[in-house]
Amino acid sequence: MEPKKTRIETDSMGEIEVESSRYWGAQTERSLHYFQIGKDQFPRELIRALGIVKKTSAITNAELGLLEESKKDLILRAAQEVIDGLLDDHFPLSVWQTGSGTQTNMNANEVIANRANEIFGSTLGSKSPIHPNDDANKGQSSNDVFPTAMHIAAAESIHKNLIPSLKLLESILKEKSKLFQDIIKIGRTHLQDATPITLGQEFSGYAQQLSYSLDRIGHVLPSIYRLALGGTAVGTGLNTHPNFSVNVAKAISEETGIPFVTAPNKFEALAANDSLVEVSGVLKTIASSLMKIANDVRWLSSGPRSGIAEIRIPENEPGSSIMPGKVNPTQSEALTMVCAQVIGNDVAVTIGGASGNFELNVFKPLIINNVLNSIRLLSDGCRSFAIHCAEGIEPNLEKIKTNLENSLMLVTALNPHIGYDKAAKIAKLAYKENLSLKEAGVKLGFLTTEEFEKWVNPKDMI
Amino acid sequence: MEPKKTRIETDSMGEIEVESSRYWGAQTERSLHYFQIGKDQFPRELIRALGIVKKTSAITNAELGLLEESKKDLILRAAQEVIDGLLDDHFPLSVWQTGSGTQTNMNANEVIANRANEIFGSTLGSKSPIHPNDDANKGQSSNDVFPTAMHIAAAESIHKNLIPSLKLLESILKEKSKLFQDIIKIGRTHLQDATPITLGQEFSGYAQQLSYSLDRIGHVLPSIYRLALGGTAVGTGLNTHPNFSVNVAKAISEETGIPFVTAPNKFEALAANDSLVEVSGVLKTIASSLMKIANDVRWLSSGPRSGIAEIRIPENEPGSSIMPGKVNPTQSEALTMVCAQVIGNDVAVTIGGASGNFELNVFKPLIINNVLNSIRLLSDGCRSFAIHCAEGIEPNLEKIKTNLENSLMLVTALNPHIGYDKAAKIAKLAYKENLSLKEAGVKLGFLTTEEFEKWVNPKDMI
Amino acid sequence: MEPKKTRIETDSMGEIEVESSRYWGAQTERSLHYFQIGKDQFPRELIRALGIVKKTSAITNAELGLLEESKKDLILRAAQEVIDGLLDDHFPLSVWQTGSGTQTNMNANEVIANRANEIFGSTLGSKSPIHPNDDANKGQSSNDVFPTAMHIAAAESIHKNLIPSLKLLESILKEKSKLFQDIIKIGRTHLQDATPITLGQEFSGYAQQLSYSLDRIGHVLPSIYRLALGGTAVGTGLNTHPNFSVNVAKAISEETGIPFVTAPNKFEALAANDSLVEVSGVLKTIASSLMKIANDVRWLSSGPRSGIAEIRIPENEPGSSIMPGKVNPTQSEALTMVCAQVIGNDVAVTIGGASGNFELNVFKPLIINNVLNSIRLLSDGCRSFAIHCAEGIEPNLEKIKTNLENSLMLVTALNPHIGYDKAAKIAKLAYKENLSLKEAGVKLGFLTTEEFEKWVNPKDMI
Amino acid sequence: MEPKKTRIETDSMGEIEVESSRYWGAQTERSLHYFQIGKDQFPRELIRALGIVKKTSAITNAELGLLEESKKDLILRAAQEVIDGLLDDHFPLSVWQTGSGTQTNMNANEVIANRANEIFGSTLGSKSPIHPNDDANKGQSSNDVFPTAMHIAAAESIHKNLIPSLKLLESILKEKSKLFQDIIKIGRTHLQDATPITLGQEFSGYAQQLSYSLDRIGHVLPSIYRLALGGTAVGTGLNTHPNFSVNVAKAISEETGIPFVTAPNKFEALAANDSLVEVSGVLKTIASSLMKIANDVRWLSSGPRSGIAEIRIPENEPGSSIMPGKVNPTQSEALTMVCAQVIGNDVAVTIGGASGNFELNVFKPLIINNVLNSIRLLSDGCRSFAIHCAEGIEPNLEKIKTNLENSLMLVTALNPHIGYDKAAKIAKLAYKENLSLKEAGVKLGFLTTEEFEKWVNPKDMI
Repeated sequence: MEPKKTRIETDSMGEIEVESSRYWGAQTERSLHYFQIGKDQFPRELIRALGIVKKTSAITNAELGLLEESKKDLILRAAQEVIDGLLDDHFPLSVWQTGSGTQTNMNANEVIANRANEIFGSTLGSKSPIHPNDDANKGQSSNDVFPTAMHIAAAESIHKNLIPSLKLLESILKEKSKLFQDIIKIGRTHLQDATPITLGQEFSGYAQQLSYSLDRIGHVLPSIYRLALGGTAVGTGLNTHPNFSVNVAKAISEETGIPFVTAPNKFEALAANDSLVEVSGVLKTIASSLMKIANDVRWLSSGPRSGIAEIRIPENEPGSSIMPGKVNPTQSEALTMVCAQVIGNDVAVTIGGASGNFELNVFKPLIINNVLNSIRLLSDGCRSFAIHCAEGIEPNLEKIKTNLENSLMLVTALNPHIGYDKAAKIAKLAYKENLSLKEAGVKLGFLTTEEFEKWVNPKDMI
Repeated sequence: MEPKKTRIETDSMGEIEVESSRYWGAQTERSLHYFQIGKDQFPRELIRALGIVKKTSAITNAELGLLEESKKDLILRAAQEVIDGLLDDHFPLSVWQTGSGTQTNMNANEVIANRANEIFGSTLGSKSPIHPNDDANKGQSSNDVFPTAMHIAAAESIHKNLIPSLKLLESILKEKSKLFQDIIKIGRTHLQDATPITLGQEFSGYAQQLSYSLDRIGHVLPSIYRLALGGTAVGTGLNTHPNFSVNVAKAISEETGIPFVTAPNKFEALAANDSLVEVSGVLKTIASSLMKIANDVRWLSSGPRSGIAEIRIPENEPGSSIMPGKVNPTQSEALTMVCAQVIGNDVAVTIGGASGNFELNVFKPLIINNVLNSIRLLSDGCRSFAIHCAEGIEPNLEKIKTNLENSLMLVTALNPHIGYDKAAKIAKLAYKENLSLKEAGVKLGFLTTEEFEKWVNPKDMI
Repeated sequence: MEPKKTRIETDSMGEIEVESSRYWGAQTERSLHYFQIGKDQFPRELIRALGIVKKTSAITNAELGLLEESKKDLILRAAQEVIDGLLDDHFPLSVWQTGSGTQTNMNANEVIANRANEIFGSTLGSKSPIHPNDDANKGQSSNDVFPTAMHIAAAESIHKNLIPSLKLLESILKEKSKLFQDIIKIGRTHLQDATPITLGQEFSGYAQQLSYSLDRIGHVLPSIYRLALGGTAVGTGLNTHPNFSVNVAKAISEETGIPFVTAPNKFEALAANDSLVEVSGVLKTIASSLMKIANDVRWLSSGPRSGIAEIRIPENEPGSSIMPGKVNPTQSEALTMVCAQVIGNDVAVTIGGASGNFELNVFKPLIINNVLNSIRLLSDGCRSFAIHCAEGIEPNLEKIKTNLENSLMLVTALNPHIGYDKAAKIAKLAYKENLSLKEAGVKLGFLTTEEFEKWVNPKDMI
Repeated sequence: MEPKKTRIETDSMGEIEVESSRYWGAQTERSLHYFQIGKDQFPRELIRALGIVKKTSAITNAELGLLEESKKDLILRAAQEVIDGLLDDHFPLSVWQTGSGTQTNMNANEVIANRANEIFGSTLGSKSPIHPNDDANKGQSSNDVFPTAMHIAAAESIHKNLIPSLKLLESILKEKSKLFQDIIKIGRTHLQDATPITLGQEFSGYAQQLSYSLDRIGHVLPSIYRLALGGTAVGTGLNTHPNFSVNVAKAISEETGIPFVTAPNKFEALAANDSLVEVSGVLKTIASSLMKIANDVRWLSSGPRSGIAEIRIPENEPGSSIMPGKVNPTQSEALTMVCAQVIGNDVAVTIGGASGNFELNVFKPLIINNVLNSIRLLSDGCRSFAIHCAEGIEPNLEKIKTNLENSLMLVTALNPHIGYDKAAKIAKLAYKENLSLKEAGVKLGFLTTEEFEKWVNPKDMI
């Protein structure tokens, strides 16, 4: 294999070779060398968010008279390419790096500087006219840039992916609830037969869980609308313009269409990542809701012969080459696995969130990687389940009817007519001799077939 | 030992002996026998909440014309004693029982019936005039009573204990932040010396974390204001009056002074306990915040000689019989342990919350026991830390000054005057030869003592 | 209320009043005042273990000529009462105290000294002839005493409670497996009908999980047989006799009948509690196994009419006053809740275990409280489930037969006789028209009734 | 963009288009369509393990006379390419798929069949001579193949990556422990100054934690040496040769050099994944150990001026462009983040492990993905920390000396000479007036300079 072409990049520790085709610089290259840990790289959403920070910072600095228009324009062009995903191949770093995310912030600074200089016609590595620290990172510090990008990425992912997915599933469940509103079925508590309910009522509970999920995520979004940018190294705002924080939050808000604001206390914003711990807590609450729904769906569709089998779900893949009725509830399985992962991720996020010291929490890459993964998993899992399973759910009317009619709980309806004691005797006989309630009642001479049919009507019990 | 006197109690399974001095009945006695698991019993708050449910249900049923006034009055007197904690010894059941909490609901019904009948002059076990099922549990089911009591207990605990404790610590931290606003000290990121910050700024971050904690808990309270009562067995409201749910929620709201409302969807309210999972998610977020603060306090007070030692904390107990300066940060230790427990409890709650099936979640006792424990631990831990530690924090001005003056980071202030390169040389020499920056600067001939003292002023860096 | 009588106790911080009837001293009293957090107190097992440490330390010190025989005898008498549980009321401290457990070690020292002095005829609080520090704590430090007591308590609890409970359930499940070995039933994968299995085979899987659970706990016991005692304050063994560590471990081994040894590296033994983290990891693995078994039992017994209903479980409590068949699987519910708690406790233990610094882990009370709780919960939960549920499980032969005969999976057996394609057509027709396989086969003309009955024999499929 | 060339593949659901360049078939293609969830794909180790299962199954089937030699040879060639990683691009499926891993097993079957047929000269999609189900999957079921591959992948990863990494770090720490054995320093408990210890003793504790980590992983390996293969669909071994299970385990053992055996109970082996839950419990125990070590290293190296600064760690990247001493402890940060992730992953694994039903646990992809990720993260994180940090640790002898000499704890050594009371007075004065112990002692007239120097010798205290 031919050796790759390289160029020399420099930082305060000296020179280092970088592959010629790459825009990154010395600090990224060092990080690549020192952190060969796992396979995880930051998702696209975070790289995009860093591009947004760099673009809006350049705009804000220029407006404040701190950055020449020509430099601003160059930074804007390069940062836009980062935002648009054109330079993703130039962000090679591991999640498992410095706990402040400094190396990924420097990766963004280096890529933007080199790409901007290339656009200008300058040499890669020249740091001129755009310097990665002095220009791309102007008035910023990794310590405020990175948590800002974390909030932007999480908020955008929630708005673009999670909320639409939850709404999609909510709407399907609501629709099913309406469609199924007249289908009376046996209820179940403790997994045991209980008094009747409609299939629509059952699905209304699921739809309600989705509605509350949307409420929950809505309540915590304002927490991550608060941005750290402007706090620089330790929260004091050293080396940045006093108006920078407010102005740049406004610019970010305009760029994203999301109502970001500057965090009222920058010390908290750097030292703690509590807002993302809070968000993660809501994500695992949503996971908890979805796990219940996905489990109900697979139990209700269990069978085909020797399970509950009150609903049918779409047959997407061959369950078995022999048994036509064997539809494995694979969408439920994928979704429940996703939910278990989100609950585990939440523990990792919480440990990271609790582990800050003094002016900086240095578990930031861990935190944002897990939060973004959880958002993506819930979004995708929920959408997949909605489209490939929930949408196609149909009642198995015959089984529902049989189960309902077999139910010994219907005896409750006889209490007002023949009294509690006789009703109990009917139920006991029916269970013992495996009779229908009607048969048992008639056998005991407590009522006639006609009376039974008049008095026992599940429709009056829901 | 003399054998205890007993009486006979009955339920649908037959007769059973109960100790004469106890108000509970047959179902409680059976549960005592069948569930000898662990030492955990439900906390007072939940027993009180069950009393509130029974009292307000009797009032509501009477208003709806479903319960005679005389019965209502008897139930009210007994239920009030449950509310007031006079009958706590008559609630002996393990948390680890039926997953619906049925046995603890029946415990309440049996105690209230027996105590009411005793007040009336009737025999214990007579079930007359007050019947545990027909009267104390009238129009109710364990499946709606228990989750209602869970929400009442959690909401009351949060209002009475958690919020006041958080506010106390918040106010102390705010006060410290003001007191310490002019004390300039070295900042630390990655545990390494960084640019200056004031001690007041550092504490303002902690105070902000407490303010947000209060916001967070405020945002989830409405979730647990929604009450399941009126859903009865499976959410359909079978066997209860159509107006019962709305009226009883109003009565509970009046009784407690907390704006409870009836849950809009009773199927969700029985089958899922997502609201308590959500609350638990906030509790662990608060734990994550408190862990950071408690850790900072113990690191900042570490020493007395060979640690950071920038603050002093109250000396409550003998640290050591020899060394007067050895103040162990025991309040921080207790609080961080509490936080770890709350994070663990949250996992248990989440697993329980995710494990519902069909019309009922049967992990209810687990869920509420952990949520109430977490609330209590955070409330007590926070209050103890506030009173016995935070309140007495004092700056160690001498150490703060020494650390600040030793800091090589102050060299940053020289950049505008002598340029980055010379400043860096000063810092490197100072570090290498263990000099002060001033000494190094003068030695290198880059500036005079007077210039250094004029240019390097930490006050301008915060 | 009359004021309680008090006496004066002293420590290095001065005097403090203690209620006259209590044996504890000044440091315990201070801890009571400063740590009013939660309701948790250390379980009996830990108090007993502290008694064992004090007794065996006195014996060892006396043998080494460091403690007079008369003092030894006094300490022995008092320590024995601690071991036997006679002085439990004198251990009032909260779990949430200093992270080293120092206050509970001092509680033991103070109680033993005061009780020994009382036996001698001396005044409480006199510290003579037995001094809490100089005699009861001779050659020891909280930092080695407490982790030693943690290991003793955990090992004893595992031997006395957990292992017998697991063995009990294992033997019941093995017995059921044999009893059920000829009962052929439908298998289920993905909750869907699958090829046949015997009920005995199903239960053999559960029994195997219990056997492995016993193996697992056996493999980690040696980790907690290693004792920290002899390391004193920081692991160097300052102020103790060089032979103390080996000798005292031998004495503890003799006292308990458990093969404890002195830890080869005392620095690890004080600074880390990894062995208990490891034990907790096994406890949650056992919880994971038990949760599967308990869930299977409740699903297999679900019904009575509209569930799986292939087994019957004991009817311990009234499930419902109307429906005789409604047996709620409450033992499964209690056990699965217990398992969820153990999994949550494990997270708390792990966070505590990961949080040590330098020469001492100061999350010790959290760690041991959770480990002992988990051991107790699993032991009790497992025993309760064994006695009150597993022991009484019976097959519902009729339902098992119906489910098996209805199963479309039996068609697999026709492949060698009529070929895969025809077999598949039979299955499809049977599912579509709700026929038996036999009916479908005959209807399609692929085989006769006799042939079907000869060829399709579930007994050959297991 | 030009449309990609496709061919037709078929399964029991019919035809589907697959891109011509890909070896996978219909079932893989369907899974790609239905499971667009997240970015996670199974790591190389699992794909390799599937190749091993297919290769050894073909060998075993041929030896049993069930597979023609020519077919065996074709399967072997294709399976070997899977083992060697040459076909990784043909395994495109998401982790979030069917919970049995069936689709990834079919992916392996399809790829091996197509590649074997290509080698033979047949057309892709022809299923001839090698049929994905009848030949590649002969005598197997996804339900036994997948858990077998899980165990192989985990065991190989532990042997190849985790154990060598732990050993590397262990050996470095042991070496440091020896090198540092004479460096006496202040000990710290509760973060507070305590009695002396050598730096070597401190590092011996870390080395011991690594030794125990290796023991721990060693103790659980036999659990995952047990293989499910031979159980087929539900554990009964339907459709496979009675000798297959034992023989194939032997073949796998020979292929891998790891002592795999056939699981004694196949019902447990399919229905539960407890062994991997157990392994995960050990992984998080190791994470807990490593977190302590990594934290100690960063605290001990904190500074350079205002921290503890008793050790120096390698300066790998620019900490800051200004301050030469600012070495951020980035390897510690990466490692502690990794540990937090492993602890979170363990929760996901445990939930998955606890969620099996009847004859199959369908959280298998979740479980193995997390276990393999945790192994990789710990392996890489540990190795990176060893090479880039631990290896380069050096004592800061000057700071160690200053801290030791300043320590008030040394006063303990005066007790035998001047008595406890006078020693305490010296310590108190020294602390109050910020004197050295020597200065305070002389000032109080309790001893001379010479006496102090003779009596107070830290070397005698370790």
